[in-house]
Amino acid sequence: MSVDAKIIARLKEAMGPKGFTEEPAEIAPHLEEWRGRYHGQSQLLLKPANASDVGRALAICNETKTPVVPQGGNTGLVGGQIPFHGEVLLSLERMNKVRGVDAQGLHMIAEAGVILANAHAAADEAGCLFPLSLASEGSCTIGGNLSTNAGGVDVLRYGNMRELTLGIEVVLADGTLLDMLRTLRKDNTGYDLKQLFIGAEGTLGIVTAAALKLFPKPAAYVTAMVALPSPAAAIALLTDLQHATGGLLSAFEIIPRIGMELVTAHIPGSSDPFAAPSPWYALVEASVPEGLDLRASIERQLGKSIEAGRATDAVIAASEAQRKSLWRLRENMSEAQKLEGASIKHDVSVPVARIPDFLQAASSGVQQIVPGARVVAFGHAGDGNIHFNISVPKGGDGKAFLAKWEAVSRGVHDIVNDMGGSISAEHGLGAMKHNEIARYKSKDELAAMRTIKRALDPNNILNPGKVLPD
Amino acid sequence: MSVDAKIIARLKEAMGPKGFTEEPAEIAPHLEEWRGRYHGQSQLLLKPANASDVGRALAICNETKTPVVPQGGNTGLVGGQIPFHGEVLLSLERMNKVRGVDAQGLHMIAEAGVILANAHAAADEAGCLFPLSLASEGSCTIGGNLSTNAGGVDVLRYGNMRELTLGIEVVLADGTLLDMLRTLRKDNTGYDLKQLFIGAEGTLGIVTAAALKLFPKPAAYVTAMVALPSPAAAIALLTDLQHATGGLLSAFEIIPRIGMELVTAHIPGSSDPFAAPSPWYALVEASVPEGLDLRASIERQLGKSIEAGRATDAVIAASEAQRKSLWRLRENMSEAQKLEGASIKHDVSVPVARIPDFLQAASSGVQQIVPGARVVAFGHAGDGNIHFNISVPKGGDGKAFLAKWEAVSRGVHDIVNDMGGSISAEHGLGAMKHNEIARYKSKDELAAMRTIKRALDPNNILNPGKVLPD
Repeated sequence: MSVDAKIIARLKEAMGPKGFTEEPAEIAPHLEEWRGRYHGQSQLLLKPANASDVGRALAICNETKTPVVPQGGNTGLVGGQIPFHGEVLLSLERMNKVRGVDAQGLHMIAEAGVILANAHAAADEAGCLFPLSLASEGSCTIGGNLSTNAGGVDVLRYGNMRELTLGIEVVLADGTLLDMLRTLRKDNTGYDLKQLFIGAEGTLGIVTAAALKLFPKPAAYVTAMVALPSPAAAIALLTDLQHATGGLLSAFEIIPRIGMELVTAHIPGSSDPFAAPSPWYALVEASVPEGLDLRASIERQLGKSIEAGRATDAVIAASEAQRKSLWRLRENMSEAQKLEGASIKHDVSVPVARIPDFLQAASSGVQQIVPGARVVAFGHAGDGNIHFNISVPKGGDGKAFLAKWEAVSRGVHDIVNDMGGSISAEHGLGAMKHNEIARYKSKDELAAMRTIKRALDPNNILNPGKVLPD
Repeated sequence: MSVDAKIIARLKEAMGPKGFTEEPAEIAPHLEEWRGRYHGQSQLLLKPANASDVGRALAICNETKTPVVPQGGNTGLVGGQIPFHGEVLLSLERMNKVRGVDAQGLHMIAEAGVILANAHAAADEAGCLFPLSLASEGSCTIGGNLSTNAGGVDVLRYGNMRELTLGIEVVLADGTLLDMLRTLRKDNTGYDLKQLFIGAEGTLGIVTAAALKLFPKPAAYVTAMVALPSPAAAIALLTDLQHATGGLLSAFEIIPRIGMELVTAHIPGSSDPFAAPSPWYALVEASVPEGLDLRASIERQLGKSIEAGRATDAVIAASEAQRKSLWRLRENMSEAQKLEGASIKHDVSVPVARIPDFLQAASSGVQQIVPGARVVAFGHAGDGNIHFNISVPKGGDGKAFLAKWEAVSRGVHDIVNDMGGSISAEHGLGAMKHNEIARYKSKDELAAMRTIKRALDPNNILNPGKVLPD
């Protein structure tokens, strides 16, 4: 598909000389998904400087029924940011200002193109914490975080991007600008429209700025690695620790024995913190305010758990260096798995209490499809989000293994669905799962989604072919 | 307006003999707002036993374009629950089951008609906390809490009803049942439709059940009353305490000197906890997990604040009896004001840091309209929600004073709006403010609200005349 030259001319004029590029070399990096899985095409990249620019661009696109794909930091994992069919691309990269930080009111206003790490820095400078924490934080942007309702490791304590958002500025399909940049904690004056655009992956409007919640900056962290006999023991520990700390855990990540083995085998400088091997591990962290002895509470509970045989051993980081080395074990899980060979990955969630059942059912399901496949299931057990990854059987053929991706995924996702879970816990549907979701969501719920889409984007110009099934 | 007899017959048949009443004496209590401010009329009260009943009723109403008003505990303060024009009433009172409590997964499933206090009890029995806390908790229901996005005193720590909701079961205008009773903390599989129905006051669908977040039950509370020189000092104290406790405050309520005077004058058994009078007070509370010494952190910070002259005095409750007596001062504010004579009330919010400016501007604005009027502004300063109430001038005529309600409100709401605030922080718009909101919300935002309403309720049968301006 190519966009009519007259439309391109109108868009260029509306945006001004700095507001677009047609240079293939400049556009190219925006067309490639970073792992090389998705490739797009587009002859025009719009680079609006402000929300009015976005409004003018969308008004023209809507009038001429020209599809447009909004893009943040291009770090998405499901292809939501890729113009697969020659759509106009619209990057928010020039809208990269933090408009203000209010340390007393605990909020900040950031434009959509602000890189997450820069939002962290702005909050930190004001003595505050913006807690959203993702692997891609050096490149992903606030607009993308919002549009995908980003999660990460601290959701247990602070919530997803949705819970961190107080207000938004958004441009509708017809170019109408809605300034809803409120910073209120309580406001019941009609429909909470912002909720519609959070997690809609750019299919209902283009978010141009957000008012975000901040938190007091923690004075310190208590970080522990705990050796556990089983996933059930991990969930029991989670419950006990949440009771002992009043729900102050910020992270609760599980790692299976094979994960520990892969990391210590492949990642230089990493070592198992325990003398004896353990079937499972939990990486536990709480952020601690000044003068509150959370460490004592956590130590006491770990002692009790070990005494009761619900945990076998535990180490608590005694320094920032030790804390980092414990986290490195968790953070290098994907990298270690990559170095071990081909893998099939899932970003799923189930109700927290169902995690042990899920791991058992899904692992044996996988064995039936690919005997010898090695399940490396790890991740955010505290919020039910498991990265259920599977490595090629030892010495097996990677290509033959990857050919089973669809069959394996079908099996895993069916089990997830049977347990009331989600086939996309944090990454969204994008282009990757927009058809698959039709298998798991009720027809009525999909129809309601379509009703909303038609109401807000009747010409289907906003990121078409994403989120909603064909 | 009266409903056609044929339609009534169809609805009765669809609901079965226990599912309706036409007895005026049985219907009457549902037509009166509890303070006597709003009076409705209806010839038919539907009492569905389950979501299918609701679906059949709405399908008939939609087909015949018969308007219907859903009702929870009939405790709303803005008339949202009242059938003003002879609409069919639909009470969720028979749907009063707690379907399940999961202490490990920290969630419960409650039907819309469950009384909030019963939801508290069910959570408590399982060793958990459902933290939504309102004055009306003995009569208000989960469905009403959801539909008004209820707030209350613990929003600072736990959020509004929206943040406490994981999933819902809802019947659309055409009778379609959407079962979205998920209990996931992370789920990014398309539009988060539940958000639309939370706070929509029954105008977009009828919520029949909800999956709610639970928290570990606190082991104890630290409760303090602090004497303060000014509202600015109160906000500074809030910031300092949140830093000292890592954001663990669950309540931060302010009371002005006149409030303390009215309560101690009118409420038997209440006494000022301080020897000397103070211009302002803050009632501060944190819920404390077992074995975490939050009391020491709060004491330490209060000591620092007094030393720095930012607070003048403080008392910390040493027993549950003392805690209750401190809370009674706050909870009797409305009652004491009532005993003092006529009052004009506002349920507003502003960004937390703007509270001191707002109190000053609004108080002097009121003086210009009613010289001598006594501002009794108190409430949830921690989340920006001030009950900006005004008592009749000493010895003044109550009736003449109340005649100025509209002029006073206009002045107060204009100031709230200028500061980026909300004219309805917790109570909703209902029938009371559905036209007034047109003065404060942009035309474009109202148009977007109408777009959603038309898309989901094209025949305008659901609670017509509420929320949206005429």
